[in-house]
Amino acid sequence: MLMQTHEARLKALREELKRRNLAGFVIPISDEHMSEYVGDYAQRLHWLTGFGGSAGFAAVTQTHAAIFVDGRYTVQVKGQVDNSLFEYRNIPKDSLADWLKGAAEKGQHIAYDPWLHTQGWVDKLERELEGSDIALVSTDSNPIDAVWADRPEPSPAQAMVHEDTLAGRASADKRGEVADWLAQNGLDAVVVPALDSVAWLLNIRGTDVSHTPVSHAYVIAHEDGHADLFIAPGKVTPELSKHLGNAVTIRDRAEFESALRQMKGKRVSVDPDFGVAGIAQALRAGGADVAFRQDPTILAKAIKNEAERQGHRDAQAADGAAVSRFLRWIDENAPKGEVDELSAAAKLEEFRREHGDLRDTSFDTISAAAGHAALPHYRVDEDSNITIPPGSIFLCDSGGQYPAGTTDITRTVWIDTPGGAEPTAEMKDRFTRVLKGHIQIDRAIFPQGTSGGQLDSFARQYLWEAGVDYAHGTGHGVGSFLGVHEGPQRIAKHAGGQSGTGQELFAGMICSNEPGYYKADAFGIRIENLVLIVPKHIEGAEGEWLGFETLTFVPIDRRLIEPALLTETEIDWLDAYHAKVREIVAPRLSGEDIEWLERETQPLAR
Amino acid sequence: MLMQTHEARLKALREELKRRNLAGFVIPISDEHMSEYVGDYAQRLHWLTGFGGSAGFAAVTQTHAAIFVDGRYTVQVKGQVDNSLFEYRNIPKDSLADWLKGAAEKGQHIAYDPWLHTQGWVDKLERELEGSDIALVSTDSNPIDAVWADRPEPSPAQAMVHEDTLAGRASADKRGEVADWLAQNGLDAVVVPALDSVAWLLNIRGTDVSHTPVSHAYVIAHEDGHADLFIAPGKVTPELSKHLGNAVTIRDRAEFESALRQMKGKRVSVDPDFGVAGIAQALRAGGADVAFRQDPTILAKAIKNEAERQGHRDAQAADGAAVSRFLRWIDENAPKGEVDELSAAAKLEEFRREHGDLRDTSFDTISAAAGHAALPHYRVDEDSNITIPPGSIFLCDSGGQYPAGTTDITRTVWIDTPGGAEPTAEMKDRFTRVLKGHIQIDRAIFPQGTSGGQLDSFARQYLWEAGVDYAHGTGHGVGSFLGVHEGPQRIAKHAGGQSGTGQELFAGMICSNEPGYYKADAFGIRIENLVLIVPKHIEGAEGEWLGFETLTFVPIDRRLIEPALLTETEIDWLDAYHAKVREIVAPRLSGEDIEWLERETQPLAR
Repeated sequence: MLMQTHEARLKALREELKRRNLAGFVIPISDEHMSEYVGDYAQRLHWLTGFGGSAGFAAVTQTHAAIFVDGRYTVQVKGQVDNSLFEYRNIPKDSLADWLKGAAEKGQHIAYDPWLHTQGWVDKLERELEGSDIALVSTDSNPIDAVWADRPEPSPAQAMVHEDTLAGRASADKRGEVADWLAQNGLDAVVVPALDSVAWLLNIRGTDVSHTPVSHAYVIAHEDGHADLFIAPGKVTPELSKHLGNAVTIRDRAEFESALRQMKGKRVSVDPDFGVAGIAQALRAGGADVAFRQDPTILAKAIKNEAERQGHRDAQAADGAAVSRFLRWIDENAPKGEVDELSAAAKLEEFRREHGDLRDTSFDTISAAAGHAALPHYRVDEDSNITIPPGSIFLCDSGGQYPAGTTDITRTVWIDTPGGAEPTAEMKDRFTRVLKGHIQIDRAIFPQGTSGGQLDSFARQYLWEAGVDYAHGTGHGVGSFLGVHEGPQRIAKHAGGQSGTGQELFAGMICSNEPGYYKADAFGIRIENLVLIVPKHIEGAEGEWLGFETLTFVPIDRRLIEPALLTETEIDWLDAYHAKVREIVAPRLSGEDIEWLERETQPLAR
Repeated sequence: MLMQTHEARLKALREELKRRNLAGFVIPISDEHMSEYVGDYAQRLHWLTGFGGSAGFAAVTQTHAAIFVDGRYTVQVKGQVDNSLFEYRNIPKDSLADWLKGAAEKGQHIAYDPWLHTQGWVDKLERELEGSDIALVSTDSNPIDAVWADRPEPSPAQAMVHEDTLAGRASADKRGEVADWLAQNGLDAVVVPALDSVAWLLNIRGTDVSHTPVSHAYVIAHEDGHADLFIAPGKVTPELSKHLGNAVTIRDRAEFESALRQMKGKRVSVDPDFGVAGIAQALRAGGADVAFRQDPTILAKAIKNEAERQGHRDAQAADGAAVSRFLRWIDENAPKGEVDELSAAAKLEEFRREHGDLRDTSFDTISAAAGHAALPHYRVDEDSNITIPPGSIFLCDSGGQYPAGTTDITRTVWIDTPGGAEPTAEMKDRFTRVLKGHIQIDRAIFPQGTSGGQLDSFARQYLWEAGVDYAHGTGHGVGSFLGVHEGPQRIAKHAGGQSGTGQELFAGMICSNEPGYYKADAFGIRIENLVLIVPKHIEGAEGEWLGFETLTFVPIDRRLIEPALLTETEIDWLDAYHAKVREIVAPRLSGEDIEWLERETQPLAR
């Protein structure tokens, strides 16, 4: 079969819209759960335009078509999308509403798939279109699916039980907590739309989505502790049915929408960020009363219980051994000019498989040499792959999915030359300032009631003193054998508009601590550990106090440190950290790897 | 004439409500400009209840009455308000809507004065009352005014010209900037409701409000640069008329509401925080289209021009000389046990009058000895006044209104004993941590785009390390011969819900820098300087960078410092600060005051 061109696809979509009497259509990268990673079956934007980035959307009318991407993808979009078919537009500078006002005629109907957008997105666009006489209408079925002949089927993989010993709590207990929340809020039921929330609530996992061990499913949880699980029948094993028990009714995922329409008179909560518009629309069409509240599993899931905390410590220790071996391997092989970015990433995964019960990487490994490291979200592929140049900085950001926990670590190392080259003074200055910020977060003590937005500047202040900064957040939440990016908390600038910076931090939450510095086309630095929020006892303290327990243990490259920039306190932190690395990682290594680790974790020469 | 009891006043109000067929009424502390300081004529809550605090409100129905105050006033309200007349309610724990649902019957009308609440307040209360069948209605005139026989007249004081040399810009230039803003936003006019915004826009000042040199007036500014000033005719002098010129039409303040009703077809902007509901209601009643936007003068006023910056430096220098003389006077007299809080405040004002062109204090001086200093907002009066005990900490927070600028400074000093007592180790520890935070803010470097909320934690971190904090913001904006608390910027916790913490900081803004520590019933510490935001040049910097220039110069008491807790950098900052105090203040002193200053500004013994 001949590969269909994007021109032919766009034409087919326009004909389909004409058949449906629709003037235009909006195509996001999204699935019915507002997932971070979207399965092939839902890659409609890629099918239509060829765009392979992780964020953006297109809009099509009979006469116009445009693709909207943010600053990360302005170069990539030009290489992947034919601009004789799609104009390029910039997010957030260009607005969809303004574009539609120019591309559609008054009185026309622009359609959207209500299962791929939140109600908040719909409301905002409607507000922006007010007075333009362009109407927004929801479609019954997605017009792209009607013309996408070889559209992949959703993953058929079976769902799996996540053992209570790892989960730390039985599903019935979690559902009881949700039921209490419903009762307190005068609600009858809550729709749980996010895949990781479903997995957490029922103690199940899956392999439907790469990097995040979840199954495609919805839950409706009721105020009596009972839940309906909507899942494709082929995914349900006898073991799973037994695990779920009588208080969870397993129903076909295809029945989800009609079930929502049968909740007449019920007061039902929907999450405004993860519940797509189709959910609220179906509930309302059936006569239910919709309340938009944050899904109660989100905060409960973020606060890890003791089993999950210990699981994380175990997973990070296994992961630390793998990453340590990888760093030794890089240290010995890359200076010869024989390692490229792809082979490095492959080697790292190999070590991870040897050291732990690895189920998947937790995201695509960022294996970035020299100037590539200056792109915080760099993704290596066959086209971009380069040999790691001796005498340069190599940045590797990676993580694993283990049943005990999810890991995420970045190390930035100096790649020596056979002749023994030194990093530049600028590299050492910037690396040391990043390290100082990392230490400042790790050592932070703060009162109960503090949000991540209040801690973020601690990580940046030493870079700010030098007139530089980094254009990403300092820390995100991390799941327990779930999403490597997990809400609701976030350590980042409030001004950035990222959600979660105002979320109060609680003991039991896990965050990444990953300040960085990026010099365009030259080098990039990031030092990332995971940290667990823990109560801190302070003599004479007033109120409740929190701080961090470090979870990640892998050597930090001392060749890139300028000791004169560190205080005694900071050097003490580094030496104590390295002593702990030895203590935790050495027992998991053997032979020359141990010698390497011993050498790399010696106290810093002052 | 016999003093009317609060019981009689409440009865009179209820009869008035009955005459008007109203079931209840809400009584705030507020004027028609949402001012921070409210004139006697508008002290309706005090007249009705006896409550003398600066924040709170009451609600009255035929059968119930309550007064709502926040945590600062829970003790005070019991001393001032008869709880057989008014139940005590707590803000924010208790909600007005819930109280009304209990105190009013279904179908009843609860009234509010639309000239004393913002439209946002009205909308929120309406939302909260939804479904209760209690209707909120606005009154044509305030029912309290109908029964308050001896209500003071508003101040008859004349308005004054604020010289262009001090203002740094002509009013026509400022009105031109507002006109440009109106054009850019597709608006015809903007209502300028806040008294300090009116004063800034027209370069006028007044004496209608204590502590803030403004006149009671409204402005409507138009897109052609023309403005209508609504002001009582008796306030207008020939000099003022001449200053305002032809492009400002002076109209009777009594005509303001009818003028709003005559703007049919115009698109008019109203500030949601400073424009009372009556403004938007009158505009709409007359057929105007209301847009809620921040008053454009607020940001323009906050960014001081060069004349205002220099004016602040001059005013702070004169003020610094006065406060330095006061500290010497305290240092010599208080150890004998002969100074009380009231006489200290009086002496400080006397020094201020000698050193500068003082027009008013910028707020009621906080002269707080021993345990009183643990109340951040302590206000001394005849009843609370105590002798400053030798061997204790004395905190004085005060400021002056000078035509060149507004000042605000806090110093915390050790009061010696004739025998030479030492502060406790705890006092020195806390004072030094507060000082470290103060220095950290003063030295901060941050990128353009940063908000005050991102800097706040810098001031708190050393206290947090010891498990303590302070329950107020770190810094507020300050006017130029205007409000000592001026928006829109604020350095404070985001979580506190205080407005302004997300406002981007710009060069030219002035903030206070005032971390503190308060130990209940024991002592209180606060170190406050004003700082000016200035551009910072950093070698090798990427982008635009900002930092602070210190404006306030008065010795910081070294007897309360524990040098072992300071870094070299911090000691260098302190010594350099004290050298600058000598340089700026010594030329304004004479005789023994100079000797005292020389001694108090010596480098810290390391």
